[in-house]
Amino acid sequence: MKLTVLGCYAATPRTFTNPTSQVLEIGNHLFLIDCGEGTQVQLRKFKVKFSRINHIFISHLHGDHFFGLPGLISTFRLLGRDKELHIYGPKGIKQAITLFLKLGDSWTNYPLIFHELESKESELVFEDGKVTVHTVPLVHRVYTNGYLFKEKKAPRTLDAEAAREMGVDKSQFHKIKKGADGLGSSGNVIPNQQLTLDPPEPKSYAFCSDTVYNESIVPIINDVTILYHESTFLDSEEHLCERTKHSTSRQAAQIAKKANAKLLILGHYSTRYKSIELFKKEAEEVFPIVELADDGKVFEF
Amino acid sequence: MKLTVLGCYAATPRTFTNPTSQVLEIGNHLFLIDCGEGTQVQLRKFKVKFSRINHIFISHLHGDHFFGLPGLISTFRLLGRDKELHIYGPKGIKQAITLFLKLGDSWTNYPLIFHELESKESELVFEDGKVTVHTVPLVHRVYTNGYLFKEKKAPRTLDAEAAREMGVDKSQFHKIKKGADGLGSSGNVIPNQQLTLDPPEPKSYAFCSDTVYNESIVPIINDVTILYHESTFLDSEEHLCERTKHSTSRQAAQIAKKANAKLLILGHYSTRYKSIELFKKEAEEVFPIVELADDGKVFEF
Repeated sequence: MKLTVLGCYAATPRTFTNPTSQVLEIGNHLFLIDCGEGTQVQLRKFKVKFSRINHIFISHLHGDHFFGLPGLISTFRLLGRDKELHIYGPKGIKQAITLFLKLGDSWTNYPLIFHELESKESELVFEDGKVTVHTVPLVHRVYTNGYLFKEKKAPRTLDAEAAREMGVDKSQFHKIKKGADGLGSSGNVIPNQQLTLDPPEPKSYAFCSDTVYNESIVPIINDVTILYHESTFLDSEEHLCERTKHSTSRQAAQIAKKANAKLLILGHYSTRYKSIELFKKEAEEVFPIVELADDGKVFEF
Repeated sequence: MKLTVLGCYAATPRTFTNPTSQVLEIGNHLFLIDCGEGTQVQLRKFKVKFSRINHIFISHLHGDHFFGLPGLISTFRLLGRDKELHIYGPKGIKQAITLFLKLGDSWTNYPLIFHELESKESELVFEDGKVTVHTVPLVHRVYTNGYLFKEKKAPRTLDAEAAREMGVDKSQFHKIKKGADGLGSSGNVIPNQQLTLDPPEPKSYAFCSDTVYNESIVPIINDVTILYHESTFLDSEEHLCERTKHSTSRQAAQIAKKANAKLLILGHYSTRYKSIELFKKEAEEVFPIVELADDGKVFEF
């Protein structure tokens, strides 16, 4: 898994900070998560291959998470895309995008497939052989979902060296990979577990932005490997959280702790703060392993 | 008059080039013309005061001229704007913007006034004591208008020194400024023209983008001081003009020549070209005084 943060600041795009957008590389996919204004420029800047993006997950329809989408969709057309593009987001997103395309008489020449969301329960929105994506219902000023991306447990892999040592003939390898036991040279049964290796532990990534402090997401994201949780404010501005439906970094850390996350990444900082270092400090008072997202930062897990 | 080019490249925004947007300073106004994605960041970069922008003129609803508008309108709200904002553009622009605001439940807390255009004839869309703005109907793939900004002729200004020399008492100055003749110390009538100075010649600016070569705009922009005319292509790509409804720089120069412009500014370059110098060279074969727009370039007239 590899996470490229294209933008992680709240509200308005500025000369050196960008609104929310991330690229998650998982199970051969390049998932785009949120698409604030300027996302397509950030994709170019960080040399992300446009053609590998086939799924875009939008959390909510505030500008700093969404206003880059019409432009990106148009650019895909200008780049001659012909593959399907899947867009997941709140109900209304289809109407918004299609109105913009209609007004510009600029229909895509590739299939644009909308998956509109309106459930208040977590639901499976994407699944293939390697990955699942579930929504994480959040509480914000408008209908909002986070997304939980999970690797599936890979099959056990053949331990060819052990097999040879135990006198297992190559002709059995195909079956052993599928889970069968092996036969030694003297016809003795060798359990599959002795001939195969444990697959790596599947990893997961939860994107939770924007949201007020909300413990009801804990069962959904429980045991997540990496939690990205918004932290718009520091403690000193906690009084703004309830009205704006945002969180402090300390609250993000409380969610990480309750959900037994392995790592917390903070982001969606209010642009009122000169430095983001205090976000880490305040979160670490609650939860030990904290990283700060920043525009252009890459995390490899 | 002062023109700040925020972006002047066609199609997709890229790391170092921006789609169309300009700021025209004329008669105490700061008019924003077109608003491609990223315009608000360019406004910050070039230190344009957001609060001085009260009128935004949109030529057409293609992304590279329009997709920055929802974000800019939202940012005005976040900046606490309370003054009216007037938006001029093709019919449909109101529906598009209000849908985006509605989906984000982010209504502006300032009056947003749309002036939707659908006429195919040039019309007056703005006028005050110092300036007029007329549409310039263009021919593009969708309904498009350029805009002609004209200073009004200022009143003649008092030549106080001449007046004193001719024995005109100060008490008459107010009337003379309003156009009255003066009286000398011996009661002789002195014609107003001898007591006042010619005002500076009013200047005008025509923004014509995007458009195919179209001579029917010549009578509308005739004798314009500065003509900004799109030049998406060089001669070598002239065959693309008819299908894409764009112009070459040579065609832009032909319009400048026929309209008796004083200066031609080229822009809206296709991003296929490595250098823009050839645009100037090809235009100058037709029309002598050519400047190249570029992102961040400022013209003072």
